[in-house]
Amino acid sequence: MSQFKHVGIIGRLQSNQVLGTIHRLLSLLSDQQVEVKVDQRLKAHLRDKDVDFTSVQSLGKWSDLIICVGGDGTLLGVAREMLGFNVPVLGINRGRLGFLTDVMPEAMQRQVVDVLNGKYIMEERFLLTAQLVRDGKVIQTYPALNDVVLHPGQSIRMIEFELYIDQKFVYSQRSDGLIVSTPTGSTAYALSAGGPMMHPSMQGIVLVPMFPHSLTYRPLVVSANSEIRIVPSEENPLPPQISCDAHNHLVTQPGDEVIIKKLEQTLHLLHPVEHNYYDICRQKLGWGSRLGED
Amino acid sequence: MSQFKHVGIIGRLQSNQVLGTIHRLLSLLSDQQVEVKVDQRLKAHLRDKDVDFTSVQSLGKWSDLIICVGGDGTLLGVAREMLGFNVPVLGINRGRLGFLTDVMPEAMQRQVVDVLNGKYIMEERFLLTAQLVRDGKVIQTYPALNDVVLHPGQSIRMIEFELYIDQKFVYSQRSDGLIVSTPTGSTAYALSAGGPMMHPSMQGIVLVPMFPHSLTYRPLVVSANSEIRIVPSEENPLPPQISCDAHNHLVTQPGDEVIIKKLEQTLHLLHPVEHNYYDICRQKLGWGSRLGED
Amino acid sequence: MSQFKHVGIIGRLQSNQVLGTIHRLLSLLSDQQVEVKVDQRLKAHLRDKDVDFTSVQSLGKWSDLIICVGGDGTLLGVAREMLGFNVPVLGINRGRLGFLTDVMPEAMQRQVVDVLNGKYIMEERFLLTAQLVRDGKVIQTYPALNDVVLHPGQSIRMIEFELYIDQKFVYSQRSDGLIVSTPTGSTAYALSAGGPMMHPSMQGIVLVPMFPHSLTYRPLVVSANSEIRIVPSEENPLPPQISCDAHNHLVTQPGDEVIIKKLEQTLHLLHPVEHNYYDICRQKLGWGSRLGED
Amino acid sequence: MSQFKHVGIIGRLQSNQVLGTIHRLLSLLSDQQVEVKVDQRLKAHLRDKDVDFTSVQSLGKWSDLIICVGGDGTLLGVAREMLGFNVPVLGINRGRLGFLTDVMPEAMQRQVVDVLNGKYIMEERFLLTAQLVRDGKVIQTYPALNDVVLHPGQSIRMIEFELYIDQKFVYSQRSDGLIVSTPTGSTAYALSAGGPMMHPSMQGIVLVPMFPHSLTYRPLVVSANSEIRIVPSEENPLPPQISCDAHNHLVTQPGDEVIIKKLEQTLHLLHPVEHNYYDICRQKLGWGSRLGED
Repeated sequence: MSQFKHVGIIGRLQSNQVLGTIHRLLSLLSDQQVEVKVDQRLKAHLRDKDVDFTSVQSLGKWSDLIICVGGDGTLLGVAREMLGFNVPVLGINRGRLGFLTDVMPEAMQRQVVDVLNGKYIMEERFLLTAQLVRDGKVIQTYPALNDVVLHPGQSIRMIEFELYIDQKFVYSQRSDGLIVSTPTGSTAYALSAGGPMMHPSMQGIVLVPMFPHSLTYRPLVVSANSEIRIVPSEENPLPPQISCDAHNHLVTQPGDEVIIKKLEQTLHLLHPVEHNYYDICRQKLGWGSRLGED
Repeated sequence: MSQFKHVGIIGRLQSNQVLGTIHRLLSLLSDQQVEVKVDQRLKAHLRDKDVDFTSVQSLGKWSDLIICVGGDGTLLGVAREMLGFNVPVLGINRGRLGFLTDVMPEAMQRQVVDVLNGKYIMEERFLLTAQLVRDGKVIQTYPALNDVVLHPGQSIRMIEFELYIDQKFVYSQRSDGLIVSTPTGSTAYALSAGGPMMHPSMQGIVLVPMFPHSLTYRPLVVSANSEIRIVPSEENPLPPQISCDAHNHLVTQPGDEVIIKKLEQTLHLLHPVEHNYYDICRQKLGWGSRLGED
Repeated sequence: MSQFKHVGIIGRLQSNQVLGTIHRLLSLLSDQQVEVKVDQRLKAHLRDKDVDFTSVQSLGKWSDLIICVGGDGTLLGVAREMLGFNVPVLGINRGRLGFLTDVMPEAMQRQVVDVLNGKYIMEERFLLTAQLVRDGKVIQTYPALNDVVLHPGQSIRMIEFELYIDQKFVYSQRSDGLIVSTPTGSTAYALSAGGPMMHPSMQGIVLVPMFPHSLTYRPLVVSANSEIRIVPSEENPLPPQISCDAHNHLVTQPGDEVIIKKLEQTLHLLHPVEHNYYDICRQKLGWGSRLGED
Repeated sequence: MSQFKHVGIIGRLQSNQVLGTIHRLLSLLSDQQVEVKVDQRLKAHLRDKDVDFTSVQSLGKWSDLIICVGGDGTLLGVAREMLGFNVPVLGINRGRLGFLTDVMPEAMQRQVVDVLNGKYIMEERFLLTAQLVRDGKVIQTYPALNDVVLHPGQSIRMIEFELYIDQKFVYSQRSDGLIVSTPTGSTAYALSAGGPMMHPSMQGIVLVPMFPHSLTYRPLVVSANSEIRIVPSEENPLPPQISCDAHNHLVTQPGDEVIIKKLEQTLHLLHPVEHNYYDICRQKLGWGSRLGED
């Protein structure tokens, strides 16, 4: 019997592949003793007559399991939307294995039923929150599951800023920006920028300078409980901006500060029981398999 | 009144600068209400008549504070020698600021007295232990405060091995070797090899591949509680070796495994109250100072 | 007697330091048997009564030596403005040693007189030209002494493009962009992005991917005579742009191509006779000096 | 009619795959109007009765084409052995595409006949020579097609040395060593160490520091005509060594110098007419193929 009673479904919009997978998922769930509701943004695209559509907010309150169909980018959005509802999320990918969405279409039938029956791995992923501070007050804030990036808004422009960690001055830097990444984000943009991979269970944050003007700035890993404070120079020709998961953007004014720290709420990410982080790394990055195997 | 009663002194051998500093230190301590003993390996070099010399073992048992005079390399050795005695260590440098030895000669008088009077920062640094496993039995083991390095013994030779973390297969790799580093070691060899810096308080281990044959291997940060298991290929032309702090060496035989994990005992490292890790980084790496300051 | 008869002076605007240096330079030149004209953009700022001001175009035609006062950025602009006039350029820096502007204020008197008397090193630096091709026609073109950079215009956005070198397909890539750099530019932005340094005499172009999505893209050095053709994907959400020396910008439309190749005209850069490229590298990057020297 | 009359065959020893390919090659060549001789080191392994075996020296003198069967490593050796004989080399790979050996077994029949009939691409690859200089005299010298590497002989040991290029002092460095690589070697060890790729036609040499102690040392590309002089410190605990193509080794004594420069003789490497360097890069490194293709 299913451990979960109320299953909410959210999917990537404007993708026929995702719609097909959702159809198959709805059919599969109809055989299980669960109630199902679907994100109403999908209403225009799903031909199923007797589906119960509702808002994302309602889904968050009502569901005890969210199934997200799409790529890792889709799940990033769902994670932010579900913040505060404390509902676990399972990701189904539409073709390419993801770091976050690791139920593959061909194994969906078995793995979804397994999950419903309580056979899964639950992983807790922490998020960051970026706060824009003006005149000593937090005036805007956004969450990020992958990364918070300080940048000048425009390509190939430099900014200057001071960095403080846990109230200690670290450095001033001139660069294209700074990536502040969770372990989840460490295989995304931060990796392209030369950052290390961090196991998802790490309670660590990595700060990766983007094309720093001097060669001695390096990726720096600090505790997930650290408070990271960025003070942009007031002389920057372009106002430095902050992007959260490359999605929500904050624009600073001279004198503003940005504070980045761990969010209290976490993402409960479900995986099939056979999930192994390193298997995904190996497959996505082409690392060598067991010796004597190929 | 001094918080410490029994002060043991260990110093780098064959350095006149260190001897000079030890003389000044002995004189300084004679004004404090502490008993002092000195590592007997220094006996031949110290002209002081009424110094009490004793073995490192005795020093470990007798002292409630060890003062180490020398560079970071000297303190690495002292840390390994003092394992199991649970005695805090303070490092005095002879000229160049170190990451571990951050009492500078010119501030020694004040900072040592401060420490004796209980004004200090105590930092706990974890060590790794490398175990050579043959036929299922641990046949040899060494501690490391900086790093455990797998390598072929000779320069520009490649080895092949499998890596397992917490019983999960990670990858097989062909490279010049693998650096397994603590946060303490992350500013040493691992940094030269492209690894990130890790704040000393991080409960993390970084694995840095050395010149891997394929470009997709990257530094990987895992929990300090992880068990790292390396299984060298049995086909390696040279027997892979393990070096601990570039000091103690283990040579594998075909079929051997190496297990690396956190050591139970830690190093209690003392710092002057004004200690700031980032100040040391900034000074040693030439990072930018506060804006408007230069 | 001076080898040069007509000396044109161009300087960085809005810098009091530069104005001061120009004053000293004018005074110095008044003792030499040379005629001097000054860029008329400096007219409003120079208090000297009897200075002959003229347009940059006229300066190019009239001068047989251009002295540029400012930093490397100023000289980059002068080099582009002087293209086609075939006049050598000498750079005077206002404080910080530059790669291009290596006459230092304190040595100016002696070194400028030396240069006038024919004691100098002449270096030929090649430039790139970026052509925007639409419907088979070159519709816009800009020169670059440092680099031509393909980018999406906005920070932390990705573009996709194909690269062809000498009519051969090289790769398609998803990244933040691509830096195409001369040896002159190899110590500038390309270096921050992980490119190699190239000696100024190298007839080579380096292509440095910016945060490529996959880890196997690496800096690639090709002949300075190569034709580099970039074909942006027509699916990019933002229209890829081309920036030349971070100064002039071209915006592509779907279907456009960009062709980058060596410009026929070169920059003749003058240096004091004691000029040594590696000395400048060593000083600016902090490389180790001769052994036994410090 | 064949453009080549005398074909010499050299193959990797102790590989059944290579022997099989040589058998097929011999059979193929018997239909062409060419005389064939085989490296006598293969005599014990080839069952063919009527093959003409001879020494490598004789092969070099007699052949007007050498066919090398094996991987890139085999061809490296053949290139060094054939130095001075001015005979072109064609490489047949036994399974995995190589940068140097790019006739694949399945295309061998057609491509070898094409080459004999004059349909091929001839590429000139330059080699380096490393000279050990003692008391002002060159006492030993070796050629290298890939790279000359300075190193301490043992893993994870540091050496200190001065570098001079074209009689100019560049830097002193403490590191695990220095890789001096040709364009041919730039996709081998130098690439693992962070060096750029260089197109084979580049007249350039890249110097790649190995784990330098300071973070500001970077790969440096200089003219292929440069003279590179390395002066090891006399204080190194281990005598620095020089390895040429990881094969021949020179051991320095205190006071020795090493001079590395382009060798006069070059390798004439033949390729099938469809050869494209970038195709090989793309295939071996997994770069993206044409857009819209996958």
